[in-house]
Amino acid sequence: MARVVVGMLGLGTVGTGVVKLLSNHKHLTLKRVAVRDLGKERTVDPGCHVTDNPEEVVNDPEIEVLIEVMGGEKPALDLIVKAIESRKHVVTANKEVLAKHGPDLFKLAREKEVAIFFEASVAGGVPLISTIQKGLEANQIASILGILNGTTNFILSQMEEKGESFEAALAKAQALGFAEADPTSDVEGFDVAYKVSILAALAFGNFVKPDNIFRRGITHINSVDLEHAREFGYRIKLIGRADRQKDNVAVRVEPCLVPISHPLASVSGSNNGIVVNGHAVGELMMVGPGAGELPTASAVVGDVINLATALRLQDFASYFHSAIGAKWQEVTSADQWISPYYLRLEVEDHPGVIGKIGSIFGANQVSIQSIIQRGVADQGASVVVITQPVETGRIESAIAAMKSEDFLKNTGTCLAIFSNKNGAKGG
Amino acid sequence: MARVVVGMLGLGTVGTGVVKLLSNHKHLTLKRVAVRDLGKERTVDPGCHVTDNPEEVVNDPEIEVLIEVMGGEKPALDLIVKAIESRKHVVTANKEVLAKHGPDLFKLAREKEVAIFFEASVAGGVPLISTIQKGLEANQIASILGILNGTTNFILSQMEEKGESFEAALAKAQALGFAEADPTSDVEGFDVAYKVSILAALAFGNFVKPDNIFRRGITHINSVDLEHAREFGYRIKLIGRADRQKDNVAVRVEPCLVPISHPLASVSGSNNGIVVNGHAVGELMMVGPGAGELPTASAVVGDVINLATALRLQDFASYFHSAIGAKWQEVTSADQWISPYYLRLEVEDHPGVIGKIGSIFGANQVSIQSIIQRGVADQGASVVVITQPVETGRIESAIAAMKSEDFLKNTGTCLAIFSNKNGAKGG
Repeated sequence: MARVVVGMLGLGTVGTGVVKLLSNHKHLTLKRVAVRDLGKERTVDPGCHVTDNPEEVVNDPEIEVLIEVMGGEKPALDLIVKAIESRKHVVTANKEVLAKHGPDLFKLAREKEVAIFFEASVAGGVPLISTIQKGLEANQIASILGILNGTTNFILSQMEEKGESFEAALAKAQALGFAEADPTSDVEGFDVAYKVSILAALAFGNFVKPDNIFRRGITHINSVDLEHAREFGYRIKLIGRADRQKDNVAVRVEPCLVPISHPLASVSGSNNGIVVNGHAVGELMMVGPGAGELPTASAVVGDVINLATALRLQDFASYFHSAIGAKWQEVTSADQWISPYYLRLEVEDHPGVIGKIGSIFGANQVSIQSIIQRGVADQGASVVVITQPVETGRIESAIAAMKSEDFLKNTGTCLAIFSNKNGAKGG
Repeated sequence: MARVVVGMLGLGTVGTGVVKLLSNHKHLTLKRVAVRDLGKERTVDPGCHVTDNPEEVVNDPEIEVLIEVMGGEKPALDLIVKAIESRKHVVTANKEVLAKHGPDLFKLAREKEVAIFFEASVAGGVPLISTIQKGLEANQIASILGILNGTTNFILSQMEEKGESFEAALAKAQALGFAEADPTSDVEGFDVAYKVSILAALAFGNFVKPDNIFRRGITHINSVDLEHAREFGYRIKLIGRADRQKDNVAVRVEPCLVPISHPLASVSGSNNGIVVNGHAVGELMMVGPGAGELPTASAVVGDVINLATALRLQDFASYFHSAIGAKWQEVTSADQWISPYYLRLEVEDHPGVIGKIGSIFGANQVSIQSIIQRGVADQGASVVVITQPVETGRIESAIAAMKSEDFLKNTGTCLAIFSNKNGAKGG
């Protein structure tokens, strides 16, 4: 195989794995690696020039393929742009840069006739992107959804299995290296939102601006909610989803009650699990490690190998011409989304409360499937409501109306109940 | 996109789905379809010339891509060979032809500089082959295993859930169209053996001659075995697997007890579920419809689209050069395979039987994990033995030794207990 010269930005967890895997592929020559801190001790020797000046990598004319595994929006974005402008192909794991700047980056790549490969940006080692691009060509995708963040799935699994609080489970995830010192991007759902934007681009042709993605994290989830969920036959999972609607696309990130019988409920620990609904294939599910040194590096190096195989073709550009659009995807208003809901309310424990709650739901046109009171000694009572499918907007109106009632001590938790069939009104 | 002219052999279930899906891709022109019986009523109109002479399709010089979905070894093999000899690319769902003649076919295809695509030959709609070929490029595959036959999985699920006999569950599968009138290929494991041969070629480079694959079907499984399995925490699944060993490859098809906590145990009904173990990615699982009109057609048409996209490249042949070898893969002797076993023996119900069984196992160097007697009124007793991991050869010696004892009424059932870690001696 012809020799291909590669440069890399970043030598953290993923970069270390990339160095290890590249050593099995002698035709892929790693020439320069840029790191933030030259003094840091490393577990691998990249066997090439290591610099703390990323420009040295991006400006080296001999480097044909740039691997970007430094993460974060800046300065990664500028470096990727410079690399494309000097006609380097890019393999990136950077979901944030892709989700925030995808349309411009793919437009620029088309102009410069280079490819951007990004298998590692979603679901780590799970080869989801090549599956959608190459394995499901004959399908119109109706939806892609699933568990896309290993950190939050680990935390929720710990909370459920060990009865731990969110804080305790987060601390354990941090101690084990599954969560960052600043966990905001994971636990508030930003990380999943970036991935949903990328999945929308693959399935429907255009990225969704992350600000336009309805997003809820898991910090408000109480171990009581996990107990109630189990009692009703559910597990709580942080679900990201992009669903084709009549005129546009619905995109959401939120913790949901997933029925225990659904295969996504069995995806535990730091695994990812993704369900793709195609009009011909039906429901296809993939489960595997969503992060980690070698799994993520497996996706990065797989991209580099596929790129290198094609790079010497005369017609390379026409074959790898990306179909991803230069515009942002229009999305359905989050209020229009229809789903059954689970609602836990903390109330004063006196007669008539259930009736009042029922009336407020009725006035907001929310049909109730079941309503159950659970007394909690000296803390008032907990009322759990499961609704029929209803627009998100109506549930929110009902909660708002309840806030002015004096029986309500705390609005507790409101979670959508997951179903493949959820969708927007008229969608 | 440039127009590509396509011909098709077969217009059964899969062919009908292909016609439906191709209608969405106007650049893929179906020119001729060969059927066995021109008089048969069809649910689709292929909108082209339909003939009962397949030579008309194979000999048409304008046809660049031949879709073969007629199934069976003959005459499909000869027609595929003719198509390749006249430099047509082939998209086939025919596992039997590939498993029995793969080395010769891929050699011929290389000589003639054409491609053979075969996504539909294994696991129907699940894009397993593109995942291995394109998604896991950076991985050395350690094993591929799973549930590869929807008919037998449906039958076993029915037997377990409804307590039905094998015969009753088979009759239901036939009535629902999940099983053929002659179910031999499915229930005796031939179908899975062909698929295992193909998976070995993808993962390890060479096909395995189907005769060299250790193969057991499900006809001897009794609903009592499913009850015992559940009692011990297992489900019974027909598992096909190809495992890299030290010097060669171990290949097996057999019903196994799968621990309920393993994700394969949850693959129910006519679904397929496949676990790929890669050295970098770790464990990856895919679940989806293993058969059916549109799912399988989705795989066929996906192949045609991918082929058509690349067909106009000047360097087409070099890019699609197949790495599959022209030799047969050497395999490990089936006797060397190590696994724990479940054994159900029907015995005379008198004292000392357990001791005798224990002694015979001991004499054959089989360690027992547990041995449990279940009395069955007026039918003697049933003894269930769970062994420690042991070579298949030893279990078979122990069973042979028991046959000469007068306490044994019936050898009952012997099933391997599934584990990712099972492997051959020294492997």
